[in-house]
Amino acid sequence: MLNNERGAAVRPSFSRWLSQTNDITQQFMAMGVDPSFISMAGGLPAAEFYPVAAAAEAADRALSRWGAAALEYGPVDGFMPLRAHIADRMSRMAGRHFDTSNVLLTVGAMQGLDLIGKVLIDEGDRIVTQYPTYVGALDAWRPRQPVYTPLDWGKPGTSVETLRSAKFVYGVPNYSNPTGALVPTPARAALLEKALEADTWLVEDDPYLPLQYDGDAGPSMLALDGAMMPGGPYNGPVIYLGTLSKSIVPGLRVGWVIASPDMIAALTLAKQSTDISSSMLTHAVALELLEADIEKVHVPGMVGHYRERRDALCAAALETLAPWFEWQVPSGGMFVWMKARNSTIDTGVLYARALREKVAYVPGSVFDPAGVDTSSMRINFTRNAPDVLREGARRLAVAAKDAFG
Amino acid sequence: MLNNERGAAVRPSFSRWLSQTNDITQQFMAMGVDPSFISMAGGLPAAEFYPVAAAAEAADRALSRWGAAALEYGPVDGFMPLRAHIADRMSRMAGRHFDTSNVLLTVGAMQGLDLIGKVLIDEGDRIVTQYPTYVGALDAWRPRQPVYTPLDWGKPGTSVETLRSAKFVYGVPNYSNPTGALVPTPARAALLEKALEADTWLVEDDPYLPLQYDGDAGPSMLALDGAMMPGGPYNGPVIYLGTLSKSIVPGLRVGWVIASPDMIAALTLAKQSTDISSSMLTHAVALELLEADIEKVHVPGMVGHYRERRDALCAAALETLAPWFEWQVPSGGMFVWMKARNSTIDTGVLYARALREKVAYVPGSVFDPAGVDTSSMRINFTRNAPDVLREGARRLAVAAKDAFG
Repeated sequence: MLNNERGAAVRPSFSRWLSQTNDITQQFMAMGVDPSFISMAGGLPAAEFYPVAAAAEAADRALSRWGAAALEYGPVDGFMPLRAHIADRMSRMAGRHFDTSNVLLTVGAMQGLDLIGKVLIDEGDRIVTQYPTYVGALDAWRPRQPVYTPLDWGKPGTSVETLRSAKFVYGVPNYSNPTGALVPTPARAALLEKALEADTWLVEDDPYLPLQYDGDAGPSMLALDGAMMPGGPYNGPVIYLGTLSKSIVPGLRVGWVIASPDMIAALTLAKQSTDISSSMLTHAVALELLEADIEKVHVPGMVGHYRERRDALCAAALETLAPWFEWQVPSGGMFVWMKARNSTIDTGVLYARALREKVAYVPGSVFDPAGVDTSSMRINFTRNAPDVLREGARRLAVAAKDAFG
Repeated sequence: MLNNERGAAVRPSFSRWLSQTNDITQQFMAMGVDPSFISMAGGLPAAEFYPVAAAAEAADRALSRWGAAALEYGPVDGFMPLRAHIADRMSRMAGRHFDTSNVLLTVGAMQGLDLIGKVLIDEGDRIVTQYPTYVGALDAWRPRQPVYTPLDWGKPGTSVETLRSAKFVYGVPNYSNPTGALVPTPARAALLEKALEADTWLVEDDPYLPLQYDGDAGPSMLALDGAMMPGGPYNGPVIYLGTLSKSIVPGLRVGWVIASPDMIAALTLAKQSTDISSSMLTHAVALELLEADIEKVHVPGMVGHYRERRDALCAAALETLAPWFEWQVPSGGMFVWMKARNSTIDTGVLYARALREKVAYVPGSVFDPAGVDTSSMRINFTRNAPDVLREGARRLAVAAKDAFG
C-alpha cells in the first residue's frame, strides 16, 4: 500500500483494521460527477427539496442572535440551547421527561456510532446486531475490532443469555438500513425486556423516523422504556440516535444521542478526544430552523415525493427486475432491499456490469457482518426523480440479463 | 461508574482506556459561566476579535453561490473548492506544489490527530513525541492504547534507531503546546533527516503558525522536505496539520491534513467511519472568508492584541509569581509554561487552591505522557484582556502563598 518515491524501506504499517475495511461509502459520496450516471447507492436525501432559503435566513438570524458565541469552540456536548431543544423534542416524542444530561449532540448519528464503539468496545468484545446491518455502523466499529452475533427480533428471538454476552445490542427498528423493514411493536417490547433482564445496552438507531409512507412507525424502544419508568432522570439501557439529516438537511451534520447520564458522560469524554467540539454555527443554524418549525413546513411535501419515488421504483422493478429479484415494498425510509431468487445470481458480479451500464446500488455483502451475503442488494429511491429511477431499473435489468441471462 | 436505578446487576463495563483519561479539556470548554471566574486554562482565542459580520456575509454568499450543495453530505475528504484552496495555500507556504490528493479537510486539527491514531496505532504501538505534549493529542490516541517515548529535538537528539521503533513522531515546532517553545530550524532539519532515514511518519502539528509576536517562525518541516523533493506529487513522511481555529474562528471547525496520497487515502477511510463527512456549510463559509482574504484584514490586529496580552501576563507574573515559578517569554502562540523553582511546589495542589480564588490554569501533569510531572503549569494569555490577566496572576499568587508560603 505504501510507495515511497525515495525508494527506501517502507514506512510503518497501517493499523490492522484498515486492511479489513472498504471505501464503498466514500465511492457513493463522490458519485454524481457524471450526470449520465444513475446512483441508487447512497442513502441520500433529494437535494432539490433542501430548504436553502430558510437555511440562509437561519444562518443570518443565528449570527445576529448569538454573535461570537456561534463562532466559538462549544462545550464538548454541544450548544446548550440546542441540547435543551432536543431534550424537549425527545420528551414530547417519547412521552417522558429527558433533561440535557440525557443529551449529547453529535456530527450526524454517525458520530454517535463511532463514540459508542469507542466507549464500549475493546478488541474481541461482542456486539449483537441485526443481520444485515447498516454499513456505517460496521465501519464505525471496525477500528475497535469487535465480534458479531446476529440479532433475531422474532419469537422466541435472541436469548437473554446471548444478550448478556454482548457489550450492546444494535438495531434500526424503523425502516431499517439496509432492508427497509419496520419492526412490529411487540418485537421491540420483547427485545427491550430481554435487554433489561440481561442488563446490557440497547442501541436504537432511528434516522428514518420522519420518512413514513403508509401509516405510523409505532413507539420507539426509548418510549417503551420511558413508559415503564416515567419519573426521575432517564437511566434506562436505551441509547437512542437521532438526526436532522433526513428531515431537514444532512450538511449541517447535526445528530444526537439520548441515553442515561453516565453513558452521555462517557460519550462526551470520547467526543472530547475526537474533535473537541462540533461547529457551534451548525448548532445555532439548526436551532433557528427547528424553532421556525421547518420540519412542519418541509417534511410532508418531501415525504409525498419520496412515496411517489418508492412507488415508481417498485413498479418499474416489477416490470424489469422481477425475473431475478424479489422484495418487500417498504412502508418508510429510503431503501428497497432486493434478494436474488436463486444462488447463481451474485450481486457482486452484477455490480461490475451495472457500473458499465452507468447505474449503481450497494451490494449486500457490505451489510453482512459475516461478509458472506452474495445475493442481495440495497436500492435507494429518495435521491432520484421517478423517471430516473425507472431508467435506473431498466439499466439494472440490462446488466442482470447480460450477467445471468 | 454505572448506576442502574432498577437495581439490577451492572451493565457492561466501559472500554479500558476510559478509566485512564480525564475530562480536563471538557471542564475548560465549559468554564466561563461565572463571569467573576478567570480561566487562563483553555487554549482559546479571544472571542471579541471574531469577525462576526464577515462570517454572516460569508454564510449569505456561500448559500447564494452553492445553494443545496452547501447543505449536502459532502465527499468524505471535504468540499472540493476548499480542498483546492488549501492545496494552493500550502503550496505557497511550503514553496512546493501540493494537489488535492495531498489534502484532507478535518474537524479542526484535532480530528486529524484522532484519525492518525486510528490509521497507525494498534494497542502497544510506539509514538515518539515531545515531552510535555499537547493534551488533546494524548486524549486522541488514548483509545488506541499506544506507548510513548520522549522526543529530543536537541543534538545529538533522538536516535534513528528510536525513531525506527515508532509508528510516528509527533511535534509542535511552532510555539508549542504547552511550552510555547519555538524549535530552531537546524533542529527541525535534523529531525526530518532522521525521520527520513528511519522511514517513519513525522506528524507536524502547526496550529499556532499565525500567532507570531517577535519575528518569523522559520520553515515548517513540510517546507524543508518539499525543498529537498520539489517535483512530482508530494510523497514525503511529513503529516502536516493546519487549522483556521487560531487565525479566523474555531467554531467553523475547519482544519486540514497535508500528507502523501496513500496517507490521505487511509485517513479518509478513517474519517468515513467517523462522521461520513464534515458540514459542507462550514467548508463553504470558510472558503468565502479565505477568498475575501479575511486573515490579511483580521490577523495583524489580533496578533497585536495577543502580543500586548503576553507582555501583560509576563510582566504581572514577574511581580507576583516569580517567587515560586520561572518561565521563558514565548515568541508566539498562546501559552506561557511555568516551572516550579523547587519540588515542594505541586501544581496539582495549587490547582485546587486556585479554583477557590476563582482562577484556573492547566496543571502540567496532563501534558506528561508518563503522568509524573507535578511541578509545571500552562497559562493561556490570548483569551483574556490585559487587566484580567493581571488580576489572574494576582489571584494565582494568593493561592500559591496560601499553599506554599
